[in-house]
Amino acid sequence: MPKKFSYQQLFSFSKNIFLKIGCSNRDAETAATSLLMADLRGVDSHGVARLSGYVRLWEVKRINAKPVIKIIHETPSTATIDGDAGLGLVVAPHAMKVAIKKAKQVGTGWVSVKNSNHFGIAGSHAMMALQDDMIGIAMTNASALVAPTFSVERMLGTNPIAVAIPAGNEPPFVADFATTTAANGKLEILQRKNAAMPVGWAQTKDGEPSTDPHALKDGGALLPLGGDREHGSHKGYALGAIVDIFSAVLSGANYGPWVPPFPAYVAIPENMPGEGIGHFFGAMSIDAFRPATEFKTHMDKWIERFRSAKTIKGEKRVYIPGDMEREWEEERMKEGIPLLQPVIDDLNSLALKFEVKPLYPM
Amino acid sequence: MPKKFSYQQLFSFSKNIFLKIGCSNRDAETAATSLLMADLRGVDSHGVARLSGYVRLWEVKRINAKPVIKIIHETPSTATIDGDAGLGLVVAPHAMKVAIKKAKQVGTGWVSVKNSNHFGIAGSHAMMALQDDMIGIAMTNASALVAPTFSVERMLGTNPIAVAIPAGNEPPFVADFATTTAANGKLEILQRKNAAMPVGWAQTKDGEPSTDPHALKDGGALLPLGGDREHGSHKGYALGAIVDIFSAVLSGANYGPWVPPFPAYVAIPENMPGEGIGHFFGAMSIDAFRPATEFKTHMDKWIERFRSAKTIKGEKRVYIPGDMEREWEEERMKEGIPLLQPVIDDLNSLALKFEVKPLYPM
Repeated sequence: MPKKFSYQQLFSFSKNIFLKIGCSNRDAETAATSLLMADLRGVDSHGVARLSGYVRLWEVKRINAKPVIKIIHETPSTATIDGDAGLGLVVAPHAMKVAIKKAKQVGTGWVSVKNSNHFGIAGSHAMMALQDDMIGIAMTNASALVAPTFSVERMLGTNPIAVAIPAGNEPPFVADFATTTAANGKLEILQRKNAAMPVGWAQTKDGEPSTDPHALKDGGALLPLGGDREHGSHKGYALGAIVDIFSAVLSGANYGPWVPPFPAYVAIPENMPGEGIGHFFGAMSIDAFRPATEFKTHMDKWIERFRSAKTIKGEKRVYIPGDMEREWEEERMKEGIPLLQPVIDDLNSLALKFEVKPLYPM
Repeated sequence: MPKKFSYQQLFSFSKNIFLKIGCSNRDAETAATSLLMADLRGVDSHGVARLSGYVRLWEVKRINAKPVIKIIHETPSTATIDGDAGLGLVVAPHAMKVAIKKAKQVGTGWVSVKNSNHFGIAGSHAMMALQDDMIGIAMTNASALVAPTFSVERMLGTNPIAVAIPAGNEPPFVADFATTTAANGKLEILQRKNAAMPVGWAQTKDGEPSTDPHALKDGGALLPLGGDREHGSHKGYALGAIVDIFSAVLSGANYGPWVPPFPAYVAIPENMPGEGIGHFFGAMSIDAFRPATEFKTHMDKWIERFRSAKTIKGEKRVYIPGDMEREWEEERMKEGIPLLQPVIDDLNSLALKFEVKPLYPM
């Protein structure tokens, strides 16, 4: 059984580390909030397990703990933001707030961001729009691990898209997914189990289909949603490409194979065409299309109808996007967040290094 | 060898039919332009092969040939449009023009449409934004043929998404894809060949995986992009759901299993919660984010880099979304549009009925 830690403890721990690297109190809280959303919602690969990774990027001066985040271009419904190499965990909520503010003024707001870093889970930022009765959209590019259809080369990141849509009595619809068939985290689970990988998740370094979960580590590539041409991988490739272009070509960030990698020990690509990594955010006020109360009544009906669809044999439920993550969040907020021992050890090394209180299980 | 017909002939033929059912000259030209884009770009299922289907919907009074298309709600960056049961082929370009106009004024424009009908190919409308140096987005819902992950019931249409992005010296990036693994047209090709269908395209009426291309006809369902849970079908389901909600819950059209079917002989669902089918359009001015010339230089670089990616064995090219369709368009504009004999016969029955000049091959 993995040990469990309270949300509040992990929040304070992360906040303290962000303070130690020089973040302002407000930024440290924003960053810890964004980071912990991943742990709460069951995306263990994107939460506190990455905290030491962010610190290492700060150590090699690829993350600026005191960024001056600036709007460098804007219109009534758009903005382009320079993240000043800040934590994506801070830059993204800042940009999302700009999108929401514009949506309040002219119906929708759209923000493209350059010169940023990894922003945690996309869903966390998209959900910020919900409290204002808005649809929230968040996406980001990432370093290249994915081969487009027919390509041997890695050209795109896992480039996730999140869309959060408010409802009335029902909880909101929250889709948040990588534009690949499977995330790298799923390959790692199979590696630990020494189990075969389904075809369609990754290819070898020569571009052959593979069932070896080490395929990616061995120089292969993840595959776009769809897996192969016959199963629509050109659609997953197009989606990942759209995320890359909206996030980076529109803002002036790096794109395609030039996106800088998350691990600080991996060299950054040569001749980079932009600055940092890129994100894209949107906020659409429901009232800009129809009265929010009317929309919510229909959204409830939509959700109820889909949730009550007849299931295939052996399955109990048809899920609404966001159902599983919300259930994780409720459970983990109450019963604590489980961490694997290597993650606990890693965090306690940080505690020692930065002289903050180490973790103790619940 | 199928017989070929010139673009000009099929355009005039379609325009004449639209005039005969009562469209204005302008609407008939708009509709014929939208319709023929499908034939030109190789999406044979959505072009003139559907002309008699539109006529039958007009005959049963589900299509209004003289719609008064109205903005029923708007903000500086948004509009909601009532299509007055017009041809989607006419309503969609109208709505896209509203989106483009708003983007000229405040940077972006977003339009949700209710009370419309089938609008041809999504890419045709998205591409309208290109000439103004804008990114164009188009999507539509459609009658339910697709089972969400773990569902036996058909709940969503093939709900396509199109995104058109301008470039400089390179041709534009144009993605246009259904949010399913495969379109119904692909099943029909396998039916004619009496060939097996790949797993992941469709399931039986009991929700079992199937390799029978008749599975859909026999009461089964198409599957969301991804195919099954293990291959990410929950992502394709989420995408189809987002299209449905943006197109219909936002506008007041029918959604989910209540979307009216295209074939006029299929009864419309009971207790429909909205009006007609729904679309969603967006236009984003490049200049609202960064100077268009700068963007285009980087977009060219993006395209060149992806196009020159090393290919897997047996493949000659990594395609940029839109490459194949553009090559079809160039070829068919020059050498004519091939039509299958049943389509020619169907069109010539229309010619007889409406007393317009019948088709003659090139």
